Amino acid sequence: MKLVVVSNRGPLVYGRDDDGRRTAKRGGGGLVTALRGLLSRHDVTWIASAISEEDRAVAAEARGNAIEETGHDGSRYRLRLVAHDPQAYDRYYNTVANPLLWFLHHYLWGLAEQPQLDVRAWASYEEVNRGFADAVVDELDRGSAGGVLFHDYHLYLAPAMVRRARADAALAHFVHVPWPQSDYWRVLPSACRDEVHEGLLANDVVGFHTERWRRNFAGSCADLLGATVDGDVIEVSGRRTVTASHPISVDPAEFDDFAGADAVRRAGEHLFADRPERVILRVDRTDPSKNVVRGFRAFGALLDRHPEHRGRVTMLALLDPSRQDIPEYVEYLAAIEREAAVVNARHADDGWLPIDLRIRDDFAQTVAAYRDFDVLLVNAVFDGLNLVAKEGPLVNRRDGVLVLSENTGAHEELASWAITVNPFDVDGQAEALHDALMLEPEERRARAEAIRAHVRTHDVAAWIDAQLGDLRGARTTLGA
Amino acid sequence: MKLVVVSNRGPLVYGRDDDGRRTAKRGGGGLVTALRGLLSRHDVTWIASAISEEDRAVAAEARGNAIEETGHDGSRYRLRLVAHDPQAYDRYYNTVANPLLWFLHHYLWGLAEQPQLDVRAWASYEEVNRGFADAVVDELDRGSAGGVLFHDYHLYLAPAMVRRARADAALAHFVHVPWPQSDYWRVLPSACRDEVHEGLLANDVVGFHTERWRRNFAGSCADLLGATVDGDVIEVSGRRTVTASHPISVDPAEFDDFAGADAVRRAGEHLFADRPERVILRVDRTDPSKNVVRGFRAFGALLDRHPEHRGRVTMLALLDPSRQDIPEYVEYLAAIEREAAVVNARHADDGWLPIDLRIRDDFAQTVAAYRDFDVLLVNAVFDGLNLVAKEGPLVNRRDGVLVLSENTGAHEELASWAITVNPFDVDGQAEALHDALMLEPEERRARAEAIRAHVRTHDVAAWIDAQLGDLRGARTTLGA
Repeated sequence: MKLVVVSNRGPLVYGRDDDGRRTAKRGGGGLVTALRGLLSRHDVTWIASAISEEDRAVAAEARGNAIEETGHDGSRYRLRLVAHDPQAYDRYYNTVANPLLWFLHHYLWGLAEQPQLDVRAWASYEEVNRGFADAVVDELDRGSAGGVLFHDYHLYLAPAMVRRARADAALAHFVHVPWPQSDYWRVLPSACRDEVHEGLLANDVVGFHTERWRRNFAGSCADLLGATVDGDVIEVSGRRTVTASHPISVDPAEFDDFAGADAVRRAGEHLFADRPERVILRVDRTDPSKNVVRGFRAFGALLDRHPEHRGRVTMLALLDPSRQDIPEYVEYLAAIEREAAVVNARHADDGWLPIDLRIRDDFAQTVAAYRDFDVLLVNAVFDGLNLVAKEGPLVNRRDGVLVLSENTGAHEELASWAITVNPFDVDGQAEALHDALMLEPEERRARAEAIRAHVRTHDVAAWIDAQLGDLRGARTTLGA
Repeated sequence: MKLVVVSNRGPLVYGRDDDGRRTAKRGGGGLVTALRGLLSRHDVTWIASAISEEDRAVAAEARGNAIEETGHDGSRYRLRLVAHDPQAYDRYYNTVANPLLWFLHHYLWGLAEQPQLDVRAWASYEEVNRGFADAVVDELDRGSAGGVLFHDYHLYLAPAMVRRARADAALAHFVHVPWPQSDYWRVLPSACRDEVHEGLLANDVVGFHTERWRRNFAGSCADLLGATVDGDVIEVSGRRTVTASHPISVDPAEFDDFAGADAVRRAGEHLFADRPERVILRVDRTDPSKNVVRGFRAFGALLDRHPEHRGRVTMLALLDPSRQDIPEYVEYLAAIEREAAVVNARHADDGWLPIDLRIRDDFAQTVAAYRDFDVLLVNAVFDGLNLVAKEGPLVNRRDGVLVLSENTGAHEELASWAITVNPFDVDGQAEALHDALMLEPEERRARAEAIRAHVRTHDVAAWIDAQLGDLRGARTTLGA
């Protein structure tokens, strides 16, 4: 199938090596990894922002054309980089997308004094979306697309811009973040929030990871735009849009390969100088939505409430420093380090380190830790899905127990095999960690096997197929 | 009608004068004022917390009985004060009701790090509600009540406790705060949020100020308890509850009297040493939900964007210091004073004070200012109703313009005659203030008269009648 994929970050970031030669490094992030599966099976043109200096040079040389590239498995695709105005891009990314929209999607604003809305920044969000929309229209005119797949909260406005230019285009959007309910959308002035909703409804289909977020979207369309909702179909001013939910997943074969790789084996050997008796693992970006600070407090409360774990259990926190151009993220990273120091100062004893905090981006180490945890804590405040909750159990070799926030998308799939926590209830999380540590071996094994089986049979290929099926189905439903 | 009214604060607070004689001072707050209208027309037993030392002495002397009291208009009623355990009351009031529930109701938590839930405090909330429930059951057994009217967020659990003891009691609850949507209720652990919803659904009828909050309540019952919603009726486990919406209001006759009183006339004479050409007024408690800081910023932005108002327009802020036992409120009052100082330092000139900030509780001064504003700013982040938006226009003599947040309950009634603002959009508020100052005299007059006429025909007596009608209607609907 001929597809145009549109996401802010592309599958490659260009740079220069020490000898001045152009390099192409794989782009990070779960979304890009998940979408790579498209390349081998479809004829893909990928549109993304030029982010690095070298990206901009590549875009300039291409003069508005896509360039030929090769995926990680050798499949060929076309990459079209859009070089936005740097100042507009900065406001689009560092003011509107993060933190304004991200915080809104995750209910993170303390609304008494934040956010400070900046109308100019919204104009930049429109401008960058316009750049994407123009590139999509051009690719449609070149015949590159049987369908266009927009991804995530950076691109809410582009679909309506494309729709106005090409009424019959097949457009789909997948939203990877939680969809907040209508009251919280009112943080944006009506013109902005209407533009977001109308932008998404310009697609034939809008996808979410869970039914919960899909229902919230239908509800906010009804409350804010006066849309009528009939099952999965939303209608406003005579235009209909299909909604769907499919949880994203991982590629088990890739994890199987990587888990056995040398880099992971070596990382596993050096994970601990002296392995603690039990390991509670958390793996996150240092994002306020991930709830790292309360997780540390909960571990401290566990040691207070159940002193038998002192000296025997360590919380290993592997944290990828995230979005450090944004003040809220700098402050949150400082809060994380402060809280770990507080718990360690209170409890550390005789060579035992209660919280082993490691702030770096090291995927081999992460996979080594996935193999080796006894308990995996995923306590996000809100989270669109949370892939750690799938990756960890998939790779783990100790029948580790998953402790999972009720506000993660993954909870909709995995709740029956996890121990559920409320992310705001520190004492409740402490008790859940205790319960996880005390779970009988047979029960641990049964739960761990059930999660593994679920992830193996609901993999990322199934997620991609479902999206394409949705788009075809929506075109039929809508009579397009 | 024989009624039991239950609210945390009662209509009187007892004290001692300098000669050691017992005094009874009228209790503050819009709710108590509104409910006083019941006393003259019904046979009322009022149950409230003993709050002052002297309240506790009165309760002890009464030995679990109500005492006879006289209302402001000479009508007789019975007052029953419940003396809770002081430590439990402190946690119930200063930890759970404020700020936990209040902040939850107004979407004020920055969820990344707040709130810190405290399970012991929730047990105190249960304990104080139990104290109220026991008193209600005792009054029911004495035959004091054809109906019980619970009020507000302090008393969510009491109705279910009464219902379990007396299955056929006629119970109504009125919620005076915004009802948040289901995702935000998940800030509470499931046991607590379920208890809140089940507590309210134990009533025959639950009332709200607006359709918006009523719909949110139906939605959160559906999402959290799996309730089915059929029009105004909510059903869970075979038990049905009617929901209703009626905006609270004021007593126009009382305001007419008071506006002409000597105290108000004197306050008006001394309101300004030298009256500015135009006055923008705000009247609020110093509560983070009231959005005072952004209001000051908006006034600063007005002076930047439209310098023709410099030296001619003053923002008069009459703020009642609120809940200063709670750290969040102490911090917010400091933020208010800081922001006023920032705007004044930037703009003050030649004897002109841009923001005239007065932090005290002086109702005569407030009414004098109500009579004299050119623009009234009510920009609350969220607000169950907001009586200032009714009181100000009712009393005003200058065809003053109301600038009103879309997130106030009053907006559902008054939107067509107000200038609507988004409470988070500071620049938008600056433009709205400018538009209000520039409105043509005929347009100002038409809008001001429309609001006055609406408030006069939708007064507090109508609100009380509607509640009693709801309770009778619900008993019929439910076949009780």
